[in-house]
Amino acid sequence: MARCGPALAAFLFEYDTPRIVLLRSRKVGLMNRGVQLLILAYVIGWVFVWEEGYQEKDSVVSSVITKVKGVSVTNTSDMGLRVWDAANYVVPAQGNTLFVMTNMIVTLNQRQSTCAEFPDVKTECNSDDDCPQGSMDVQGNGVTTGRCVPYNAHVKTCEVIGWCPVENDTYVPRPALLNAVENFTILVKNHILYPKFNFTKRNVLPNISDTYLKSCVYDAKTDPFCPIFRIGHIVKLAGQNFQEMAVKGGIMSIKIHWNCNLDWASSYCLPKYSFRRLDDQGLNHTVSPGYNFRFAKYYQDANGTEIRTLIKAYGIRFDILVFGKAGKFDIIPTMINIGSGLALFGVATVLCDIIVLYFMKKRFYYREKKFKYVEDYDQGLTETFRTE
Amino acid sequence: MARCGPALAAFLFEYDTPRIVLLRSRKVGLMNRGVQLLILAYVIGWVFVWEEGYQEKDSVVSSVITKVKGVSVTNTSDMGLRVWDAANYVVPAQGNTLFVMTNMIVTLNQRQSTCAEFPDVKTECNSDDDCPQGSMDVQGNGVTTGRCVPYNAHVKTCEVIGWCPVENDTYVPRPALLNAVENFTILVKNHILYPKFNFTKRNVLPNISDTYLKSCVYDAKTDPFCPIFRIGHIVKLAGQNFQEMAVKGGIMSIKIHWNCNLDWASSYCLPKYSFRRLDDQGLNHTVSPGYNFRFAKYYQDANGTEIRTLIKAYGIRFDILVFGKAGKFDIIPTMINIGSGLALFGVATVLCDIIVLYFMKKRFYYREKKFKYVEDYDQGLTETFRTE
Amino acid sequence: MARCGPALAAFLFEYDTPRIVLLRSRKVGLMNRGVQLLILAYVIGWVFVWEEGYQEKDSVVSSVITKVKGVSVTNTSDMGLRVWDAANYVVPAQGNTLFVMTNMIVTLNQRQSTCAEFPDVKTECNSDDDCPQGSMDVQGNGVTTGRCVPYNAHVKTCEVIGWCPVENDTYVPRPALLNAVENFTILVKNHILYPKFNFTKRNVLPNISDTYLKSCVYDAKTDPFCPIFRIGHIVKLAGQNFQEMAVKGGIMSIKIHWNCNLDWASSYCLPKYSFRRLDDQGLNHTVSPGYNFRFAKYYQDANGTEIRTLIKAYGIRFDILVFGKAGKFDIIPTMINIGSGLALFGVATVLCDIIVLYFMKKRFYYREKKFKYVEDYDQGLTETFRTE
Repeated sequence: MARCGPALAAFLFEYDTPRIVLLRSRKVGLMNRGVQLLILAYVIGWVFVWEEGYQEKDSVVSSVITKVKGVSVTNTSDMGLRVWDAANYVVPAQGNTLFVMTNMIVTLNQRQSTCAEFPDVKTECNSDDDCPQGSMDVQGNGVTTGRCVPYNAHVKTCEVIGWCPVENDTYVPRPALLNAVENFTILVKNHILYPKFNFTKRNVLPNISDTYLKSCVYDAKTDPFCPIFRIGHIVKLAGQNFQEMAVKGGIMSIKIHWNCNLDWASSYCLPKYSFRRLDDQGLNHTVSPGYNFRFAKYYQDANGTEIRTLIKAYGIRFDILVFGKAGKFDIIPTMINIGSGLALFGVATVLCDIIVLYFMKKRFYYREKKFKYVEDYDQGLTETFRTE
Repeated sequence: MARCGPALAAFLFEYDTPRIVLLRSRKVGLMNRGVQLLILAYVIGWVFVWEEGYQEKDSVVSSVITKVKGVSVTNTSDMGLRVWDAANYVVPAQGNTLFVMTNMIVTLNQRQSTCAEFPDVKTECNSDDDCPQGSMDVQGNGVTTGRCVPYNAHVKTCEVIGWCPVENDTYVPRPALLNAVENFTILVKNHILYPKFNFTKRNVLPNISDTYLKSCVYDAKTDPFCPIFRIGHIVKLAGQNFQEMAVKGGIMSIKIHWNCNLDWASSYCLPKYSFRRLDDQGLNHTVSPGYNFRFAKYYQDANGTEIRTLIKAYGIRFDILVFGKAGKFDIIPTMINIGSGLALFGVATVLCDIIVLYFMKKRFYYREKKFKYVEDYDQGLTETFRTE
Repeated sequence: MARCGPALAAFLFEYDTPRIVLLRSRKVGLMNRGVQLLILAYVIGWVFVWEEGYQEKDSVVSSVITKVKGVSVTNTSDMGLRVWDAANYVVPAQGNTLFVMTNMIVTLNQRQSTCAEFPDVKTECNSDDDCPQGSMDVQGNGVTTGRCVPYNAHVKTCEVIGWCPVENDTYVPRPALLNAVENFTILVKNHILYPKFNFTKRNVLPNISDTYLKSCVYDAKTDPFCPIFRIGHIVKLAGQNFQEMAVKGGIMSIKIHWNCNLDWASSYCLPKYSFRRLDDQGLNHTVSPGYNFRFAKYYQDANGTEIRTLIKAYGIRFDILVFGKAGKFDIIPTMINIGSGLALFGVATVLCDIIVLYFMKKRFYYREKKFKYVEDYDQGLTETFRTE
């Protein structure tokens, strides 16, 4: 206890700093400063200016509304002249993945009954013996009855119970039936949030007038902030041919980048749109190329039995991918980077020491100055060199 | 080879530690300790206590189920008395963005035929000369035939082929038709996963009894962990007027925060709910304010021609946004922070040195103690100062 | 100004390096090297090899296509023999959460009219007095008329206006009606993107032949990269009994992990599939266990009044969760880790110093060598120890 006071005093009032050799040498001096300069340049330039190492980062949370406008007309033998509007070709009607039908294979008036299966290697037959009974092929359209019936004048196939007549999707209409979709427009309303900074913004920028929004169409050059996209235009921006894509369908991504430096005014935090085709049209081997799915509309005929119209819808699915990073000054990453930056300064000395002490011809002279050799005395030795 | 042994021995058995000047000085000593204390306080307090710099972080992966309960009744001239249930007003029936219809404009018995376009500046006409033929306006409802026909007793518009009669959405019903939605409840079941820690949890907490779940309704104060939300209540929590919002629709976010410190028991990892309106109702300039979309129900009449009921559905879309961060002790970030913390200790010495060696009146005395000046001897000089 | 030149020269041409005591001592030396070795081992081994601390990380962005194949047959009293195909049991038809119906409760030919409410404690009655008028129970099926009518031969309930007859979902069909779903296959096409590195890949690997894709079925052992999954198989992989799960439905997650080290060839960046049941079937207390929702198909009868078929669909919802981290060498994290690694080297010296200077019996001898005690001279003292 008595010894504690002095000890504390000693601790408080004493200041320890390493003893330094100041070596006056052009060569070594310049080298040393050079290395230090490099490290300084790196820490400042790269970490802070380029990588904004002084910032806390956060990634975006967002919600999306889409709305498609446009009408298209088809004139086919089985359906006659028909006009299609958003309620027809947008399936489902909402969400941030948006499907716009561009082409279709319609099978009218299917009923639950029996009919000849669609011909292929597995289903064609000559007699009932070729047809198993009650089998359900995963690729097939129903349950086989075991009978072999004519599909048309030329070919016979196994009969199935199911939705009849079965769909024939051998020939996809070309050009696409709804190719007027090229001129349709998609309005994308995107609201973002950076939870860590509680920062919110919309892609309908505050300085955009309502009249402008009613008329504008996105263009990378002239209207980079207009949230209304002409389908044909963005397909083109993705380097695709719309008429080609419309036939078998595909998937397009509308990417909205929100890279914001929140140390600046929020008005500098702006959306950047980019477009890309996602499905693997490039590869020559693909299962079900393009993009399609089936849905049905159900009816009842006069005597109450159910009928359906099966639609194999080909079209473009737009995935609206919103991502971004926001950065804002924060003490933690700054300190981490300064800390490691300082640690790197140590490297400068270490580096120079190695060169000075091992590779320069005057190394022994330098060593003598830097080091003080001390023998562990019970090894029965005295200090070899006297540095002073 | 012969020299290698001793060298290795020298390397292994020698211990190098910097030579230190211990300066006994109240002023400098206290300053030094003070600076060190500040740095210690920062490293401990801020990095570790506040920012939990010793933790590995991971962000949440989640899945959501929603279920809406409630019935609503409407009594309109064209539809008569009708009762609506979940199968009617929830479109689509599932998913983690949930739409609940609150208002609608129904256009009954549309058929593919010709009729007068809806009147506006572009479509009104006096004679057939005013009407182009075969044009499809992106905003329009069909393909113009080129004839000018009466829309009603007062006004004539260009005729179109399409779904007729065309929709008239000038007047949105006010108050909203399905305003009983205010009392509907949404059950939100949320299952989360922190992949990095393989930690899973549900918002239906294990200590919640089934009977409680059957009866409870979320309330920030009394029932903060009840996953059943009264629509009117959460709209109110978001500072909105439901009756107002119901008319034109809108987008609400139900945010579920899962900020978990997995160094504690998992029972401390609890969901926090918050509600916010996302669509830009605040701004006076908006294209298609609120939230609505169109869908149709398709029928066949007695002689098999297709009829549809077009519904322009206004309503509230609930985006359930789940996000959270989990933290768990991890050696890496800890070491990084300790490392940079230690590096900062270096700053203390550097700082004091600068003051001691450049600003104190006894600086020359201190320098003499700290530094040993050595001239590069072939610069023809001898050591200037002898520090000892 | 005149003094500036020399000062600069002095600054540029001088090289300062700390003076070191080189202590030749087996014990201390070995200890020192030992500690240094440990730190080196940690920095190299853990930070760099294990945690890949030299890499910039990025998380995945992805898009998913799913396609279900298979037919199922049901034979119920009210519907007779029916065959179901994808257009029937996949609701909605697309998206990356996919619902496959496995069981259902169908209520045919509902009309807007009045009928007896479904019996339960709240709705059963003896006389009209028991029935409020015009009340809408959130759990109920319509608006009460105030009359008490027979639901069946045994029980009377309050009458409601709504979709009549009301659904009776007391008994869920068991075994599940569409239990053939077990053999259905899901094709999952997943396209990923690491925005930071602009790296894209698909789960349909380039080296997979088209013929293989047409025939293969996923199997962890034999076909780990086949993107076609047999529903029964993945439910089994998740440790569930399909026939049991099919009755009340549930939620399955198909997780696709993309953990890629982009310092290697992209061909090493491969998807890993895992399957898990997400809904809380484990807990004995659950509101609406399993997974189900209601949707309706709307018809018009001969005289144009609306009929609907209400379907309470039980089934399996597949959430396809894609997540992954990609790492690529980057200078910033490397430097941060090296920096803090170096700082840790300092610890070695500090540690040894403490031991050497405070705990070894020769501590005074060592201190004498390391420290040079200097009194602040105006404290009227001279240097106590002369280290040289």
